[in-house]
Amino acid sequence: MQDVKPLEFFRLQTREEVLALYDRFPAVGAEDVELAQALGRVLAADIAAPEDVPGFLRASMDGYAVAARDTFGASVAAPQYLELKGEVAMGAAPARSVGPGETLRVPTGAMLPPGADAVVMLEYAAEHPGGTLEVRRPVAPGENVLAPGEDVRQGEPLFPAGIRLRPQDIGLLAALGITQLRAYQKPRVAILSSGDEIVPISHEPAPGQVRDSNAHLAAAQVADWGGIPLLQGIVPDDFAVLKAALTEAQAASDLVLVSGGSSVGARDLTLTAIKALPGAEILVHGVAIRPGKPTILASLGEPSPKPLLGLPGHPASAAVVMEVLGRPLLSHLGGPKEPAPWGRTVTAALSRNLAGASGREDFVRVRLRQEGDTLWADPVLGPSGLLSPLVKSDGLVMIPLGVEGLFKGEKVEVQLFG
Amino acid sequence: MQDVKPLEFFRLQTREEVLALYDRFPAVGAEDVELAQALGRVLAADIAAPEDVPGFLRASMDGYAVAARDTFGASVAAPQYLELKGEVAMGAAPARSVGPGETLRVPTGAMLPPGADAVVMLEYAAEHPGGTLEVRRPVAPGENVLAPGEDVRQGEPLFPAGIRLRPQDIGLLAALGITQLRAYQKPRVAILSSGDEIVPISHEPAPGQVRDSNAHLAAAQVADWGGIPLLQGIVPDDFAVLKAALTEAQAASDLVLVSGGSSVGARDLTLTAIKALPGAEILVHGVAIRPGKPTILASLGEPSPKPLLGLPGHPASAAVVMEVLGRPLLSHLGGPKEPAPWGRTVTAALSRNLAGASGREDFVRVRLRQEGDTLWADPVLGPSGLLSPLVKSDGLVMIPLGVEGLFKGEKVEVQLFG
Repeated sequence: MQDVKPLEFFRLQTREEVLALYDRFPAVGAEDVELAQALGRVLAADIAAPEDVPGFLRASMDGYAVAARDTFGASVAAPQYLELKGEVAMGAAPARSVGPGETLRVPTGAMLPPGADAVVMLEYAAEHPGGTLEVRRPVAPGENVLAPGEDVRQGEPLFPAGIRLRPQDIGLLAALGITQLRAYQKPRVAILSSGDEIVPISHEPAPGQVRDSNAHLAAAQVADWGGIPLLQGIVPDDFAVLKAALTEAQAASDLVLVSGGSSVGARDLTLTAIKALPGAEILVHGVAIRPGKPTILASLGEPSPKPLLGLPGHPASAAVVMEVLGRPLLSHLGGPKEPAPWGRTVTAALSRNLAGASGREDFVRVRLRQEGDTLWADPVLGPSGLLSPLVKSDGLVMIPLGVEGLFKGEKVEVQLFG
Repeated sequence: MQDVKPLEFFRLQTREEVLALYDRFPAVGAEDVELAQALGRVLAADIAAPEDVPGFLRASMDGYAVAARDTFGASVAAPQYLELKGEVAMGAAPARSVGPGETLRVPTGAMLPPGADAVVMLEYAAEHPGGTLEVRRPVAPGENVLAPGEDVRQGEPLFPAGIRLRPQDIGLLAALGITQLRAYQKPRVAILSSGDEIVPISHEPAPGQVRDSNAHLAAAQVADWGGIPLLQGIVPDDFAVLKAALTEAQAASDLVLVSGGSSVGARDLTLTAIKALPGAEILVHGVAIRPGKPTILASLGEPSPKPLLGLPGHPASAAVVMEVLGRPLLSHLGGPKEPAPWGRTVTAALSRNLAGASGREDFVRVRLRQEGDTLWADPVLGPSGLLSPLVKSDGLVMIPLGVEGLFKGEKVEVQLFG
């Protein structure tokens, strides 16, 4: 009697163990990026301020440039009178300075003349014929002006390497005249679809065939997370062809994703082909998460260690593995010191009991629903072979290892998609 | 005596009043978009499923295709024996059907043969010489298979117009062979910088000049929110030049942003130039928010109503106005039915008392800080003429109209940047 086909037993690694392996893969290189293209890019070098901002003493209100001491004691009942000597034009150095008892009209943003240290606002002054200004309120030195370097001071550290540039960061860099900077390259991610049953999405599948949707889902995730997806096409379940395709994918990218079949045979073929690559090493074959157990992490060894992530074949499993393992890997390769921590999760109340998977972290798809003051997380159940539950969901809730389940009404952290 | 220059008094409109005006501006037109470019795009037409997914009865486990009734009563002690007639290849229609008492080997993802309605998993069966399969557990009809249409059914509504496509949506569209779709165009946003003091960011400013940082900040925000920024350059404070530039900007875009000066003179010039455009109408001149009071909303009238948003000159004011008024306007023009509501705000505890602005909604920049279980919002104060407080912040907290202030420890909603 031929016995039951042996299941392939391998030690499942925890998600934390997998994440800890990423340190062996170096970040991608740096490149020069024009400021106009720098939004969302990760700085590869610290940036300090090359100059003061503002570069000169600026009016921050429309009014009159004065030496503050000339206004001390002014009031409606007992105004001070100053000699109005003209005005400062926008965008130009003042034509003259302000001597004791003198003033010049200044619009917001204009440079203060030498001798002036404050601005009297329009509404607290009145111009009289013959060039006299009546000042009805005192100003303190520095009032209604911005001092040189008040925004940033020359030499001040502004941005550390590893941060992702936001619009206001672009604004500050523009103010400093920094029109080019060093950023980490966007990680290039080769996506290989393997399986005899897979056809391009533009094809009409014959019976038994399915369209290559997993690769397109993964490509969209990669693009969403700041990488450059490279769809490498579909490879049949053939060792030589798969090995050649892996070699090509490795050469073209910083990370290789294999969107493989779900069958034991397909997975075995992928493993065999990886092992046949020079210097390759299987680091992980099976992760203690559900869905996503049959995940593979390998190091492609030459010329430098490069990661390969083998995704499960079921679409929901692949998408979850990309969220919980692929995204941190992409982030690691792309150089950020830390991921932006806010807005990636929301706290919600679970709308029903959820049982956990014994021995695995369970990632449950949830849909968010606001009802009065309560944000509910509704679990969206369904086999991981389906796409539509994923489409109906807003994020994932994790049931930790060793926890039997979560209760209805319990507050949970929802890891948002996208 | 020449009296105090009259301040320009205008009725401030509330933020809600301004937002309500957006309905007069039609959304941008639609265009065909390839699926590979469709991530983040807003659907301009409903999409229903053109076909079933899966298209055929699929195995969702490695095992043996059976008629479930042939396994009823099977156990380790009393197995059922079936005739193993071969296997189903991946990606092909099964070569034969399964008759009573027969079975075929199937890998995960393969098509079930006619006559089979379930899959017995590998581990609950054993192959014997001579083509006999021993089944040690019964399966129910539909067990370990995905039925045709179980994921989505032909004709089922999938996505309504107005939603923004996420990676999993791309995945489902790919599975359905939808390689092209109708999406709203990305709104084109012309950004005009006006002011005699403004120089391009690549220039070394002379005394009194500043670099055009506000336009670059706004451009990055527009790009971040899914629009196409068109930097239209810098226009001096000259009526004829400004009017010509506005006409050109209007023709090139779906929304015109004027990044203007903060002075009353600059604002007056902008208003005069707008009013001189055929069919133009000033809808808002002053909004009850702080910072951001001197905001302008105009309708440029011909050929169809097109919005113009005049931003305050102070960088922090301009950035806040873009967040609270520009972003919803861009979203409205871009066609979404509703903005994605999750992840845009977080709840935090205020780390100090904050006084509100009487008569205006106050938007306070805050930095988030996690301390143990508490997420703190630290107000980042500073004049709105500065950029660096904005760079140090993660989002905004609003002190509503009519509220005198917020207290230390109070839970606040932080509207996140980006």
